[in-house]
Amino acid sequence: MQATLSGDVVRVEPPGRERFYDSRGYGRPQGDALDLAPVEAAHLLYREDLDSVDGLDFRGLLAETGVALGFVVYRDLRERGFYLSPARAGWVEDPTGADLVVYPRGSGPWDGEVAYRVRVLGERESVPAASLDGEVLAVVDEDGELTYFGTGVHEPEGTASDAPPGAEGTLLTDRVLVWEPPAALHDGAFYGQRLHGRNADSGPLQLSLLEAAYLHEEGALSLADADGETLRERAEAVEGERFDRRLCVYAALRERGAVPKSGFKFGSDFRVYEGFESVDAMGHSDYLVRVLPVDHVFSPRDVSLDVRLAAGVRKRTLFALTGASGDVHWLTVERLTP
Amino acid sequence: MQATLSGDVVRVEPPGRERFYDSRGYGRPQGDALDLAPVEAAHLLYREDLDSVDGLDFRGLLAETGVALGFVVYRDLRERGFYLSPARAGWVEDPTGADLVVYPRGSGPWDGEVAYRVRVLGERESVPAASLDGEVLAVVDEDGELTYFGTGVHEPEGTASDAPPGAEGTLLTDRVLVWEPPAALHDGAFYGQRLHGRNADSGPLQLSLLEAAYLHEEGALSLADADGETLRERAEAVEGERFDRRLCVYAALRERGAVPKSGFKFGSDFRVYEGFESVDAMGHSDYLVRVLPVDHVFSPRDVSLDVRLAAGVRKRTLFALTGASGDVHWLTVERLTP
Repeated sequence: MQATLSGDVVRVEPPGRERFYDSRGYGRPQGDALDLAPVEAAHLLYREDLDSVDGLDFRGLLAETGVALGFVVYRDLRERGFYLSPARAGWVEDPTGADLVVYPRGSGPWDGEVAYRVRVLGERESVPAASLDGEVLAVVDEDGELTYFGTGVHEPEGTASDAPPGAEGTLLTDRVLVWEPPAALHDGAFYGQRLHGRNADSGPLQLSLLEAAYLHEEGALSLADADGETLRERAEAVEGERFDRRLCVYAALRERGAVPKSGFKFGSDFRVYEGFESVDAMGHSDYLVRVLPVDHVFSPRDVSLDVRLAAGVRKRTLFALTGASGDVHWLTVERLTP
Repeated sequence: MQATLSGDVVRVEPPGRERFYDSRGYGRPQGDALDLAPVEAAHLLYREDLDSVDGLDFRGLLAETGVALGFVVYRDLRERGFYLSPARAGWVEDPTGADLVVYPRGSGPWDGEVAYRVRVLGERESVPAASLDGEVLAVVDEDGELTYFGTGVHEPEGTASDAPPGAEGTLLTDRVLVWEPPAALHDGAFYGQRLHGRNADSGPLQLSLLEAAYLHEEGALSLADADGETLRERAEAVEGERFDRRLCVYAALRERGAVPKSGFKFGSDFRVYEGFESVDAMGHSDYLVRVLPVDHVFSPRDVSLDVRLAAGVRKRTLFALTGASGDVHWLTVERLTP
């Protein structure tokens, strides 16, 4: 079968269409001929279904077109039983943001259904957080191994009570002590931590600066010897502008009825309980939340770290992307096996 | 019992020594009187063993001296059954780098033995990597919860074979393809990855730029159409100066007989096999290695992330700190329960 390379298109003369498109979903038909992307032609050379492209063998085509990275992903998806198309304008409906469009198993480019929109990345490439909108990231690591991450949106929600009114606190270094807290503040709404240790069921509460700032803004906490501004200044002194971003996400979670607590033990900003009713009836947290500015650019390795950790403790990874206007975009990322 | 605060010392008049030091290891004797650090006095107030210090109760002393953070750690260690001393010059043998010196259970300041040298940190404080020399970090998170990390040194070692000579490769984008590799290159020494997938037991190998640069420097790999300098330039183009640091650690691990492979799936630089004999008889990797410059400053939250992930996959965390002269300092960090 004759195949010629012209720019970034490999043309296979008739009966190219019949042979590779109709039965196996490669390429884009041009009458009875077929246009292939180099990554598709490389796969046909690799499988020895094509002998050469303009005299180039598999090795020669990889060297000529530099599609080694894309080939690793293309081959893997084919071996998993999928038909797929390069996401080129005119080849697929919406090429934006994807490199490959993968059809459901048993379907092909002629069925109009899409299973995954895949973006191919080397592990050292970067990904603007705001560019992710349901795409699957296929990351080829340094050793050539593949990892897939699915992205999506999750709007947190929960059933936690509002804070009871009437707490009075003292600002001490980087926390606020509430010497005689309303009982429901900790046990009913899970604010603070018992100063006498986690097994204590009464006594003074220590609030984080974040909890204190939120409760103060809500009118549920008054401060001896300090006002809201002092609190905010103290917080910004210890944490800079990150404090404002984290407070914005903390408040958004509380307003949705979810309960955020420190994520320190998991290296994240918050662990979040969605089904919280009371401290006595509490299960494990559901999400690990990392707070990032909306213009954050991910390194795939950092994503891998967060996602792997969360999966290991049976939680899900949620990135809270905060914009200047105080709105929060909730991005989930998880390991995926296509 | 009378107690007075002067600067950062709380003096308890006789029989202070007999009452608090001889039987329970608090403070530093001054004849029959006793000097306490504020954190010790706070603990005695908290336990109601002291009534007041210059008229201050527990709450007042915390506010006056700002030792809330240290108190959380001090109380926890006392509750775990330890005697301990504030690491002040003249109070303990070597106060450098520690805030508290903890004695083995059943021992006290009079026995001359030390179990842990503890540094107290808030989760937002930073820790210069080079300052760690066996100390235990006690990190108090935002919510007031405590996590202990032990630090130490681990010199990697292993039994892997040297690379066989005679591989010839082609540089393609960010990897090197070896079309006809010596059999021992992959199976005997675990260089590269089969281009035909991990289940292939022969065929072309893809080497990472790191593997290729190392093998080329060792004289085990020749390159068609490229020399060592081209390889290095390509590597620095994709990874900048990090490449040199990582190559330095890669080479150090290989020279010790350990086998480094990509740590991408764990969000680290390398996973490392110490007991490697051959690909056929391979177990799980032992360490996750993160490469950092020797002047790196840790955020406790990042340490928590790495250590928690490694523990979840039954591996250990190893930080490879690289200096300008190419030497590597190997720092282990792990969760610890005192």
